[in-house]
Amino acid sequence: MPALSNRLEEYRKVALALDVDALALVPGPNFTRVVQHLFMSNERPFVLVIPRDGDPAALVPNLELRSWDLVGFEGAVFDWRDQDGYDAAFADMLRHLHIRSLAVEGQVMRVFTHHALLRAQPGLEIIDAEQEISGLRMVKTKEDVAALQSAIGISERALVRTLESVRIGQTEKQIEQTLIQALFAEGAEDQAFHPIVAAGNGSALPHAKARADYVVQPGDALLLDFGARKDGFAADITRTVFLQHASDEAQDVYDTVLRANRRGFEITRAGITAHQVDDAVIGILEASPYADRIRTKTGHGLGRDVHEAPYIMRGNHSVLPAGTVFTNEPGLYKIGSFGVRIEDDVLVTENGCTSLTQFPKELTILPC
Amino acid sequence: MPALSNRLEEYRKVALALDVDALALVPGPNFTRVVQHLFMSNERPFVLVIPRDGDPAALVPNLELRSWDLVGFEGAVFDWRDQDGYDAAFADMLRHLHIRSLAVEGQVMRVFTHHALLRAQPGLEIIDAEQEISGLRMVKTKEDVAALQSAIGISERALVRTLESVRIGQTEKQIEQTLIQALFAEGAEDQAFHPIVAAGNGSALPHAKARADYVVQPGDALLLDFGARKDGFAADITRTVFLQHASDEAQDVYDTVLRANRRGFEITRAGITAHQVDDAVIGILEASPYADRIRTKTGHGLGRDVHEAPYIMRGNHSVLPAGTVFTNEPGLYKIGSFGVRIEDDVLVTENGCTSLTQFPKELTILPC
Repeated sequence: MPALSNRLEEYRKVALALDVDALALVPGPNFTRVVQHLFMSNERPFVLVIPRDGDPAALVPNLELRSWDLVGFEGAVFDWRDQDGYDAAFADMLRHLHIRSLAVEGQVMRVFTHHALLRAQPGLEIIDAEQEISGLRMVKTKEDVAALQSAIGISERALVRTLESVRIGQTEKQIEQTLIQALFAEGAEDQAFHPIVAAGNGSALPHAKARADYVVQPGDALLLDFGARKDGFAADITRTVFLQHASDEAQDVYDTVLRANRRGFEITRAGITAHQVDDAVIGILEASPYADRIRTKTGHGLGRDVHEAPYIMRGNHSVLPAGTVFTNEPGLYKIGSFGVRIEDDVLVTENGCTSLTQFPKELTILPC
Repeated sequence: MPALSNRLEEYRKVALALDVDALALVPGPNFTRVVQHLFMSNERPFVLVIPRDGDPAALVPNLELRSWDLVGFEGAVFDWRDQDGYDAAFADMLRHLHIRSLAVEGQVMRVFTHHALLRAQPGLEIIDAEQEISGLRMVKTKEDVAALQSAIGISERALVRTLESVRIGQTEKQIEQTLIQALFAEGAEDQAFHPIVAAGNGSALPHAKARADYVVQPGDALLLDFGARKDGFAADITRTVFLQHASDEAQDVYDTVLRANRRGFEITRAGITAHQVDDAVIGILEASPYADRIRTKTGHGLGRDVHEAPYIMRGNHSVLPAGTVFTNEPGLYKIGSFGVRIEDDVLVTENGCTSLTQFPKELTILPC
């Protein structure tokens, strides 16, 4: 692995390209990627500043100094203690840096840090460069893909265990608990996000929460959307199965969603745009009798964050290079009745794409 | 439970007290507390605005509209779709609200939402009122305490399981994995935070990460700092044990930390200040031969957030009312050698305090 100073170089280039004096990172996926050490986002401001010219600087909670020593940082460090507050450290750092503009991660930096920067230097121009900064994570390395595969493998094994144990009469909450335990038993370091376990009319809400008072019934759709986190990377998988039987309508809806998901795989290759993928996938749903049940776009990038660039939606004309990983997750949602979503994690390659998800997606009716 | 409109009332009063025109909440612990429904913080802006005068308003991602219907909100809703972006919805909402100043949660709202507000209304004065807004969570209700006890009980049962399975030759990472699995097996809905499992010289770092390449040795201190999340509330417990034997120095350090922890319980009662608690607890450590090993303050408030008000540190002269819950977690850290921390969750009462944590804290030497 290259030294930290080399890893900072690509962020310096972003600052140059944006024509800002410096770029700041705070604990989160970009920060972890560059320092290769996990620092949590909490109530203590922690900022790494990479100027266009000159050495980097870091504002570090005193409590974290010993851990910070391990990352091999060679710039100036401005630490602060809880008892003293952090305003003096911000002022010292900004006096040291001599910058007039600063690009930040708008989806990660919180207002208290933004305000502390402005208190320390009232005229500082703060630019939200989330897209440019996090965009550096879009093309995955071999190591990134290996970590994703590991997280996906854990998730798929947990899904096997969970589906084996589903029984009529369990609540959504019980099935959720089984799934979460299975994720950790299979080796997850964390959940990538709070899972969605939704049956019957709950499956019709794209972001449903498991209910403690809903008992699964014969004929229900059961939608599970979840993922393990491993080595810093997040899996994100959805499967929808039916319990004991599926109505003709349910089977036809399932087939429609599956065709849309497959269309995504057929057309994806390096050089296609996010818009083109979404247009093709959603186009299948729109051409079906269920067009009024469309609630979501095709998907989103996947990596250290569960939701990251590129967002696979019409209007996003970003080109997908080889190495991009995104979710292909078309769905149809009949409010008050049921929903179906099928979600795979797709790796874009020069000549096509590969599904990192291997879990079967043919219509599945659990005997329970 | 009172209707949402009544629950909004105390936030309206905060806006009045701050003399701002309105107060905004975004998904996070305050938002969950008020809407009684879990919405995740993600890349989609989602803002609930409670004006000093007049009806509330909400900016809601279109995808969440059906879930939003369940919360019983009676104000104006401004929804937006991924394809269209959210700037028009912000502009419409602010035109509707007629406000000039807005109090926000600085530790929760991110820069992209802050910037969207300012794009929609360039002169809007945005005030960081984290302390006043989150301060409403400081005094816990009976239901809050019951949820905390539930989370703590799960955590303690998981600790029993984990300590039973520790063996010389395991890595910190293996012990961490056992702990995490035990938390979920005992009924955790989530981890309150990524646990700290640190042995030997790792235990000397207050925020250590479990190492895959460190094998625990006879004589090691083993520090476990972790917690379950249940019903929206977070446990936070630390115990330090020794493996097979403990040196005289280790025993003396342990005794010192335990005396500091006990001092915290002796002096806490409604009406004491955070400063006074910290002064008494840290005073014990300062009077010992190990004063140079102090790295942290006594603790922090605990509830829906793992770290919340009140911060138990010198200089914080906030009075602790009955119903406050905080962590009492003195520690001593000898860099390169070992550390000891003992952390309990304390409920302040009119006449004293109660430890919500029941796990024994006498010096424990595991036979392994």
